[in-house]
Amino acid sequence: MNIGIVGLGLIGGSLGLDLRGLGHQVLGVSRQDYTCQQAIKRGVVDDASVNLTLLAAADIIFICTPIAAIASTVQQLIPHLAPDAIITDVGSVKTPVVEAVAPLWDNFVGGHPVAGTERNGINAAVSGLFKNNPYVLTPIDSTPLAAVKVVEELVHSLAATVYFCRPTDHDRAVAWISHLPVLVSASLIDACMGETDPVVLELVQQLASSGFRDTSRVGGGNPELGVMMAQYNREFLVRSLQSCRDSLDQLIELVEQEDWQGLAQRFQDTQSQRSQFFPK
Amino acid sequence: MNIGIVGLGLIGGSLGLDLRGLGHQVLGVSRQDYTCQQAIKRGVVDDASVNLTLLAAADIIFICTPIAAIASTVQQLIPHLAPDAIITDVGSVKTPVVEAVAPLWDNFVGGHPVAGTERNGINAAVSGLFKNNPYVLTPIDSTPLAAVKVVEELVHSLAATVYFCRPTDHDRAVAWISHLPVLVSASLIDACMGETDPVVLELVQQLASSGFRDTSRVGGGNPELGVMMAQYNREFLVRSLQSCRDSLDQLIELVEQEDWQGLAQRFQDTQSQRSQFFPK
Repeated sequence: MNIGIVGLGLIGGSLGLDLRGLGHQVLGVSRQDYTCQQAIKRGVVDDASVNLTLLAAADIIFICTPIAAIASTVQQLIPHLAPDAIITDVGSVKTPVVEAVAPLWDNFVGGHPVAGTERNGINAAVSGLFKNNPYVLTPIDSTPLAAVKVVEELVHSLAATVYFCRPTDHDRAVAWISHLPVLVSASLIDACMGETDPVVLELVQQLASSGFRDTSRVGGGNPELGVMMAQYNREFLVRSLQSCRDSLDQLIELVEQEDWQGLAQRFQDTQSQRSQFFPK
Repeated sequence: MNIGIVGLGLIGGSLGLDLRGLGHQVLGVSRQDYTCQQAIKRGVVDDASVNLTLLAAADIIFICTPIAAIASTVQQLIPHLAPDAIITDVGSVKTPVVEAVAPLWDNFVGGHPVAGTERNGINAAVSGLFKNNPYVLTPIDSTPLAAVKVVEELVHSLAATVYFCRPTDHDRAVAWISHLPVLVSASLIDACMGETDPVVLELVQQLASSGFRDTSRVGGGNPELGVMMAQYNREFLVRSLQSCRDSLDQLIELVEQEDWQGLAQRFQDTQSQRSQFFPK
């Protein structure tokens, strides 16, 4: 198959590596000439260009730009495409993307590979990034089944686990498990830095160990990504945040009231609930 | 040196392994006969007993019981001790321990090795547990310097990094970096489980990946330990919790108000603050 990739960062580049490894012809487009050269050099693509015309021969195109650029990229791409070409994207929020892109191109299938590393850019691309990770597809009623099938088979060939759901259900779910943790984790870091005693603050930094390290990790991540997900998933994120504040308030009350039995019950619940997420 | 250890769990057992490895004579006491047998079998101690009389010959005794049992253990131990014996403990909250034990025995030095694994009990004991990890000592004005020196040198021989501070400063610091993360992490899990749509809840569990895994880890931990730290460090924990709720409220307001510049600034701050905790 001729596969186009627009945006050769961590996700786009890693897709290229895997899809080429599966024998497909991969064509990459990046705004940066340097990125195109690196992509060719690293074997991420067979050919690359800063010009979307390169994708005229593509059967399917993965849009791997930041969310804000997806719809405009599709608009610029359309004049160059074969009429039966399929477009899919890898944006981490689906409702605004699907609402903007589906009216532009029938053969569009929204997608979200739930995979990543701490790094970004073409030099962060690795093979096997999607293996055993979830990859969500969010077709809507008007999406042609044949297009869905093609994307599903490609994703399946990456050894990812494919899930299908409505764009809004996806966004509600990722508000809980991707976006809320960033804000919760950031609030932990922010709170600690409010310690006013310099002796204690120094101890805080000296003694911070694995518990703090893990709980604060995503709150110390890329600021642009954090803002982007809040912008595009604002409504569901606010709901999740309010629910989390309510939970925190209840825990605070149990501690203030010295209701140790009630607190033990909560911890037993969260222990058993978390083990449902991550069975040992 | 003759070293006694009361309580042969993860910490007590790991201390025994390292101290024996350094050539000390290690005597262990546990309430459970099975634990004593295991400790001898695994080479954690030279001799073990369910009876505190075994420790009559000890130069220094590490109390490694749960916090609630430390003071009563010291009381039971005193009749058997040489008058110049040194007592230290490994409790993760220091003010209540030091306040209870210092009046009972002059040669008492409060301690807290900031180290652990997910496991507990004698069979979780490992050598090298303390290496490169913080180990806090909290002597008070009345603590004899000679006793502090002995404990410091032993801790140093474990390759731990020794810190000295007041018991209250220790407890304030661990409220931020050990105890607050547990409650924050639990509130995240609790909030997610409030999702009412079964389709979304299933997706939540299917898509939960490393970000959620790390942020929720300590909130899914041992309920007894969670309650214990809240009981013994309640005052400082409540302050930390309130500060964290304030931070969360501010983040919620930024998202609700769509103040993306303000949110970006917060994320930039938390990113740079966290990098002070864990330099790359």
